[in-house]
Amino acid sequence: MSEPSSSNPPPAEEPSASSEAPAGESKKGAKKAAAKAKKEAEKAKRAAEREAQLAAQKAAAVAGEDDNAKHNYGEWTPHTHVDHKRLHVRDTTAADEGKVIKVRAWVQNSRMQGAKMCFLELREERNWTIQAIVAATNPEEKEDPVSKQMVKWVGAIRPESFVLVEAVVAKPLDPVKSCKVSDAELHLRKVYTIASGPEALVLQLGVANKPVTKLDEEDTAEETAKAVEALSVSDAAASAAPAASLATHLNNPVMHKRAPIQQAIADVRMAVRKLFSEYLDDRRFVQFEAPCLIGAASEGGANVFQLPYFEKSACLAQSPQFYKQIEIAGGRKRVYCIGPVFRAENSNTPRHMTEFTGLDLEMEIEDHYHEVRNMLEGVLLHIFRGLKDRCAEQIELVRSVYPCEEFMVPAHGKEVRLTFAEGQKLLREEGPEEFKDVLDDEDMSTPQEKALGALVRKKYGVDFYVLDKFPESARPFYTIEDPHNPKVTNAYDFFMRGQEILSGGQRIHVPELLEARLRKKGIDPASPGIKEYVDVFRSAGVPPHGGGGIGLDRVVAWYLNLPSVHLASYYPRTPKRLLP
Amino acid sequence: MSEPSSSNPPPAEEPSASSEAPAGESKKGAKKAAAKAKKEAEKAKRAAEREAQLAAQKAAAVAGEDDNAKHNYGEWTPHTHVDHKRLHVRDTTAADEGKVIKVRAWVQNSRMQGAKMCFLELREERNWTIQAIVAATNPEEKEDPVSKQMVKWVGAIRPESFVLVEAVVAKPLDPVKSCKVSDAELHLRKVYTIASGPEALVLQLGVANKPVTKLDEEDTAEETAKAVEALSVSDAAASAAPAASLATHLNNPVMHKRAPIQQAIADVRMAVRKLFSEYLDDRRFVQFEAPCLIGAASEGGANVFQLPYFEKSACLAQSPQFYKQIEIAGGRKRVYCIGPVFRAENSNTPRHMTEFTGLDLEMEIEDHYHEVRNMLEGVLLHIFRGLKDRCAEQIELVRSVYPCEEFMVPAHGKEVRLTFAEGQKLLREEGPEEFKDVLDDEDMSTPQEKALGALVRKKYGVDFYVLDKFPESARPFYTIEDPHNPKVTNAYDFFMRGQEILSGGQRIHVPELLEARLRKKGIDPASPGIKEYVDVFRSAGVPPHGGGGIGLDRVVAWYLNLPSVHLASYYPRTPKRLLP
Repeated sequence: MSEPSSSNPPPAEEPSASSEAPAGESKKGAKKAAAKAKKEAEKAKRAAEREAQLAAQKAAAVAGEDDNAKHNYGEWTPHTHVDHKRLHVRDTTAADEGKVIKVRAWVQNSRMQGAKMCFLELREERNWTIQAIVAATNPEEKEDPVSKQMVKWVGAIRPESFVLVEAVVAKPLDPVKSCKVSDAELHLRKVYTIASGPEALVLQLGVANKPVTKLDEEDTAEETAKAVEALSVSDAAASAAPAASLATHLNNPVMHKRAPIQQAIADVRMAVRKLFSEYLDDRRFVQFEAPCLIGAASEGGANVFQLPYFEKSACLAQSPQFYKQIEIAGGRKRVYCIGPVFRAENSNTPRHMTEFTGLDLEMEIEDHYHEVRNMLEGVLLHIFRGLKDRCAEQIELVRSVYPCEEFMVPAHGKEVRLTFAEGQKLLREEGPEEFKDVLDDEDMSTPQEKALGALVRKKYGVDFYVLDKFPESARPFYTIEDPHNPKVTNAYDFFMRGQEILSGGQRIHVPELLEARLRKKGIDPASPGIKEYVDVFRSAGVPPHGGGGIGLDRVVAWYLNLPSVHLASYYPRTPKRLLP
Repeated sequence: MSEPSSSNPPPAEEPSASSEAPAGESKKGAKKAAAKAKKEAEKAKRAAEREAQLAAQKAAAVAGEDDNAKHNYGEWTPHTHVDHKRLHVRDTTAADEGKVIKVRAWVQNSRMQGAKMCFLELREERNWTIQAIVAATNPEEKEDPVSKQMVKWVGAIRPESFVLVEAVVAKPLDPVKSCKVSDAELHLRKVYTIASGPEALVLQLGVANKPVTKLDEEDTAEETAKAVEALSVSDAAASAAPAASLATHLNNPVMHKRAPIQQAIADVRMAVRKLFSEYLDDRRFVQFEAPCLIGAASEGGANVFQLPYFEKSACLAQSPQFYKQIEIAGGRKRVYCIGPVFRAENSNTPRHMTEFTGLDLEMEIEDHYHEVRNMLEGVLLHIFRGLKDRCAEQIELVRSVYPCEEFMVPAHGKEVRLTFAEGQKLLREEGPEEFKDVLDDEDMSTPQEKALGALVRKKYGVDFYVLDKFPESARPFYTIEDPHNPKVTNAYDFFMRGQEILSGGQRIHVPELLEARLRKKGIDPASPGIKEYVDVFRSAGVPPHGGGGIGLDRVVAWYLNLPSVHLASYYPRTPKRLLP
């Protein structure tokens, strides 16, 4: 069999501009009508284009009457067979030269070069791409598996179609710079489309892999610009056309998810989950599952989703707090859980969602609540260090789209732990003018937290630190007061790049103390949900314990310094978004 | 220092009968009033008892004026210190003889022997118990760390109090049969209560570790008796007084969970989750998270929980099906997820819950949907075999309470896979008289499934098998029809002991086929939720794929042959139960 001579294709042109972004971005009524008309026109245009394309393919098929290669391409049917061994793109190297293999992949790009040769980029997963060539080298030769008709047909395959090919692995003359596999290419002998891409992609892969242009579901360009600036996204990356808004991304989940950056973020997210579990499994924690449906609001009733539940009503859990404590009371010494939690908060910011994933732990305290604080610090440091090892490639990929400064992790033994009062002092003395008067017993605002984050980075060279001993007034009823100073609590928040990612502390385990603090907070110990909570500590002796809850979405977003937590979630839920 | 001579205590008496079971079991109004009065009386009695007990302890404390040991016992305070090294009960053996150690544990039982000696059972976790002795051997000796007053005080510690002790490890003369650690015992020198147990336990540990007597939240004694009989729970175990109802267990979560059987079940449950993940991680599956809050009912709208969601309404996901498919369409080749799913079904049976945990996977199909079926079979066999290795002790513990026949797993290469038609034929030909006329295109009822399970066990010696090729009419719109026989589908159910634990199959990946099947099923392809589903396959070429969903709660319950799935869940949710 003769093989086409290998060479690099001419530099890729940007694929033709995509159609308009779909609904969700037009602002008001008047604009909507215009957008709709435009859309209809686009639709008609696309339909016409499709007809033309189909006609071309049909023509090619009819021409197949004289086509020696006619069985080597076309739509896949249950009778289509390619019998060679499958080789994954990720495993293909120059050492495979000459092997005849089977590959299943997406057509990422195709480019005709004359009438007898076509270059394709095939993508198997994430950013694993390989160059493929289909060429009719000996059109007169009956034995040639490729005909001119076949080249033309392959050239008309729509981007993001899923194909099955038979190919010979070859060594390109020069490394293929445009593909991840650079030292091998595929010379195609058979090509079948298993599932065809659409006539026009609403969100093209190249666009899906660019930084989002608008962070909000509504077009608040000013805020977005500020956020992007704050995140030091390079101007080049942020402004290069034709990037799409976050809404366009989320309205087109399939292409959004095919973008290598989203798969890299997903890999990082899952690595965080795994690192969390592994660290705790090694320290005799047991996992458990907390319910989502609960009988009464666990934390006072604000921001809770309620639903009709047969003859009663139910709430969606805002945290697994109560259930972690029952597990400890129930004799499990150390527990963790990973699951969804819900907040019915009408906040439309890049930091908020109505459903997110909590990484929660709770453990017995033997001598001091710093055992818990240190365990939480330990698991987070394990996560940060583990990510660098396990996800180096993914992190690099994300940074190529959203550039940012390295996340600074404290060295062993150099963890930064400030008391809340020390943090406030730092803010007063070295922070911006506007925070000159912050008080030690006031909770911090988001701008204060961010300013403190910047101060800590400057002073200690870290992006991760602990604020301990929160004021009594800033913590919920179940938090234990410092026995030596009841103005503060044995409770802490953890921060990444100046943003809170964890809240925790020691809980009250003595029912009488719990009732006293409930009353101090103005809560009736006999109220629904609360009574059941107090009863847990009355029903049997419960050891001292504490814990904390980590927001998984935030850890991922702030570690990677993404402009929005919505990019770190698989299916972000906000007051405006329940689909897909 | 002199040590008390070691000996076994007299045989334990059953602790005094518990107070009445709490609300949730009394049947109707009249009974309720009587129960309430009785309860009040109990309460008063308990209060009186408590007063007496406190007076006794106070008296002992006053006597402490002459008490050499007065600093060696009492309530724990922040100034209490025991400085010796902690040794866990699970790690304590005869080899530790003579070591002075610190232990934190629950007092499971205590028994005075005369005025100068008291035997205790201390429990640290699950069923890890050790015998402890506190004895005043030389009451005249100033150096003796134990006084008569101390022995009396220790003897009055309430069951399920959490204590901190200092002790010397000793070798008992005879093995201690009543404790898990039988070759070592603790001679106590200091005892402090960290958290006291209640005056009277509503659910005692011994009772919590017995089989439940009523499976339903309402007292349907007949049904329960039938269920217990069917499960071959030994009469001795089932009838021994004073076992408690399931409702009493669930209303007393702390003691329910302290029972070794519940901790063993929890261990098995978590082992199933881990085995599931490990097997799939090894085969390049990636985990993802599907949302709970969704915009429209994914499977037609029946049995779905709805809730107000800002200005709209939301549903709780009945399965992650749609999202698994988006992940595959989005370029992840193989995915799995573990999370809660919800069914608003008003079924009050030991098989139903409104919230449960799904173990779901989805994967690309390369050549045949049996790749998926085999993967699911593989992961379940891995789970069954792994449980035998990792949870042998837990399984034995559960069987000691709920005896049952071994779960029969097919040998490698001997997996039992019947087509649905073959299953129906077996039922017709060898099953009970009443199933003589079952048809090949009718879905099976629960009694039919159970009868088939018995037949398969008899014929093939297995409790786990696959029914493949379900009739078209029995499967949802997204299931692909067999291309060679459209009366059946490329879809299967898996069974354990004749009960369904998994449903799955190949999905339609071509939008035109999907629309055609929707219409055939009488569903409008443009209806809310459905349109978005079809659009996924239209937005880019999606490879053929399939998967399945495993009910974690059922796998645990049927593997262990528990009388109710509610015993396998951490916090079972039913139409009647949302608490704790």
